[in-house]
Amino acid sequence: MAEELEGNCLVAQSGGPTSVINASVAGVVTEALNNPCIEEIYGGLNGVLGILKEDLIDLAEESQQNIRGLSHTPASALGTCRFKLKRDEDFQRIVDVFEAHNIRYFFYAGGNDSQDTADKISQLAQERDYKLRVIGIPKTIDNDLVTTDHCPGYGSVVKYISTVVREMALDHEAMGQHDLVSIVEVMGRNAGWIAAGATLAKRRENPNDAPHLIYLPELPFSRQKFIEDVQEVLKKNRYCLVVVGEGLRDKDGNYVANSGSGKDAFGHAQLGGVGEALANLVEENLAVKARSCKLGTGQRAAAHCSSQTDNEEAFMAGQAAVRAAIEGETDKMVILVRGEDEPYSCETGLAPLSEIANGVKEIPKDWISEDGVSMTAKFIKYAQPLILGEVSVPHENGLPEFSRLSKKRVRKVLDAHSFE
Amino acid sequence: MAEELEGNCLVAQSGGPTSVINASVAGVVTEALNNPCIEEIYGGLNGVLGILKEDLIDLAEESQQNIRGLSHTPASALGTCRFKLKRDEDFQRIVDVFEAHNIRYFFYAGGNDSQDTADKISQLAQERDYKLRVIGIPKTIDNDLVTTDHCPGYGSVVKYISTVVREMALDHEAMGQHDLVSIVEVMGRNAGWIAAGATLAKRRENPNDAPHLIYLPELPFSRQKFIEDVQEVLKKNRYCLVVVGEGLRDKDGNYVANSGSGKDAFGHAQLGGVGEALANLVEENLAVKARSCKLGTGQRAAAHCSSQTDNEEAFMAGQAAVRAAIEGETDKMVILVRGEDEPYSCETGLAPLSEIANGVKEIPKDWISEDGVSMTAKFIKYAQPLILGEVSVPHENGLPEFSRLSKKRVRKVLDAHSFE
Repeated sequence: MAEELEGNCLVAQSGGPTSVINASVAGVVTEALNNPCIEEIYGGLNGVLGILKEDLIDLAEESQQNIRGLSHTPASALGTCRFKLKRDEDFQRIVDVFEAHNIRYFFYAGGNDSQDTADKISQLAQERDYKLRVIGIPKTIDNDLVTTDHCPGYGSVVKYISTVVREMALDHEAMGQHDLVSIVEVMGRNAGWIAAGATLAKRRENPNDAPHLIYLPELPFSRQKFIEDVQEVLKKNRYCLVVVGEGLRDKDGNYVANSGSGKDAFGHAQLGGVGEALANLVEENLAVKARSCKLGTGQRAAAHCSSQTDNEEAFMAGQAAVRAAIEGETDKMVILVRGEDEPYSCETGLAPLSEIANGVKEIPKDWISEDGVSMTAKFIKYAQPLILGEVSVPHENGLPEFSRLSKKRVRKVLDAHSFE
Repeated sequence: MAEELEGNCLVAQSGGPTSVINASVAGVVTEALNNPCIEEIYGGLNGVLGILKEDLIDLAEESQQNIRGLSHTPASALGTCRFKLKRDEDFQRIVDVFEAHNIRYFFYAGGNDSQDTADKISQLAQERDYKLRVIGIPKTIDNDLVTTDHCPGYGSVVKYISTVVREMALDHEAMGQHDLVSIVEVMGRNAGWIAAGATLAKRRENPNDAPHLIYLPELPFSRQKFIEDVQEVLKKNRYCLVVVGEGLRDKDGNYVANSGSGKDAFGHAQLGGVGEALANLVEENLAVKARSCKLGTGQRAAAHCSSQTDNEEAFMAGQAAVRAAIEGETDKMVILVRGEDEPYSCETGLAPLSEIANGVKEIPKDWISEDGVSMTAKFIKYAQPLILGEVSVPHENGLPEFSRLSKKRVRKVLDAHSFE
């Protein structure tokens, strides 16, 4: 048994929000309340930015209703950021703030950049001989973190996109008298996990159901093959529904569509418009109508259609993070470990932050069919359980009612820090 | 009491699908089964196209489960069309088919073009002295039919769009450290009913909630004013969420965005891309990031997020059509008549098809605020009850399970008809 470490805990969220990242915060708060060695439960506003600014809130002051409601509230209730810590004085400042508020437990929900940040904070605390336990909580709709079987957030975005595709398919079928090519653009910068997940929209016994073609950023896009693929589908079907990941690239690595709005703070290209680009390709090369739609930010916030499995696992990951830290673990991220297949089961484990930090999990080659535009049974077996179950979201006036934290500020004790 | 008319009935669907038009068919079938003067219950495939081709199916042969499932199945289970009957021989053919199959009751669910078609069929039958009762069932997400308080299909699309906007708003708030302009493009060719409905995403006590700006096709769009509107919002908020109807036009009546893909069979311009156009306007004129999303066909098929009120009214409209016809009515469309406000109540009435045929109901001027970009309390009072209640959709493998009709064909008795 590890040495008992008494003090306060801090939870923060980072990177793009998801439908279930707040469920992880609810899991942290719930578990932290159970453990007497954790005194105060703080939230950091807008990820590391809020910590730099000493913008902390007292989560134990929130009503129970508010914390319970977090479990079905999308986005990041604590606020998030894409700010990348680089300067040594900023890392020092983080540990200064922790020290000033006796924060001994730090839980950071985010993707690989965030886990990298958490790792560096942990190392600095060790160098400074400040006792701190740091546990990461996986979060990303992109599902591209290594070591974990899958990532909280992924099941929900796939459930929503597959639902939309299945509904659109019925609409297209109903309009059936004309050739139509319909392009659905989904998120996914480097990995096509989200686009691939749309394959679940097909009913198992109907391989000709939509989506008929799936284009993944993993595979170099060929305009010629695309046109041929569409023609092939239109020989058999009245319409062709295509799902495409936003980060689609050609064989030279150039984005098929680049809106030109530059790059984010981590140097990632900001993407958009590949759906429209493919629709134009169709209309220019084939005498059929093409339409595109782009679900945008809504897809990662679609709590009204989130997966109960995903939701529960996100909560569980938050709880597990607290338990691991209490047991003396640090410098680890909670991972999801798949158990049985039928029925599906999943438990949590731990992996070193350093392993996760800058890795990217790609879709295994044999989960993509040889045609390059559909998924194999292995992928379906993997993804299917992640979308199971519906979350019951309370409604007010016909719309989902979400938690908004009252955000009672913790009194600042340090001088202001200048950064950027 | 009208003369009892014994014979078969036919129900068909026309125009763009909705989340609840199948509920109207379920209402027709359910009510027709209750009335012994209706013998066979037929469905026409793909609207008038299927009737021309004598493509009829036997709806009484469908399982009860299938008919019940129609109530939560989006799109048009019978198929639909945008084919416009023009030639006299085609109208004659319709009545020939009715005569050959002893069809005495014709129920046509559609928008104003479809009600016009139904009206002409009814008049021709009278000229030919063929006893036929024709009742239209209102259907359109556009909510632009005259005489009816609102249209089945509208409440559901508004519920879905408002849900998406509310969820996106939380996401944008969470990302709050940067200026962001987010454009949501929604359907609406001539009238902005759908875009206007997104105002319901605001919590009542929070007028600064998203959507911050709503652009309606009714009002001439000014690029200059748009830029100023956005700037104004960004003074108060970290982000600005804009909802825009696809049919936005400038003061000269030109579409702000026209993808150039031509016109549909009724001469309506096919639209798309106004969201992207507004996002470009922002980025060109203001030093802020702009993103657009386009919900596309999915918005009118979003049965997973449909309004129970809308759903029930669509079913009720189908039942009312049958009851009216049995009672001797013809050449009418079922309309929805609003009763009490608190609690909201609604019953059905009837209006002459000829009145509906080519009218377009616009948003009353005093339901739009003077700023031209928000809705008044009168609009909210009107729209709010239409999105109330959630429909419980059965799921299989984590996705909505929809009805697919077995479509047992009625034996053809006429020679083939050549058209177009």
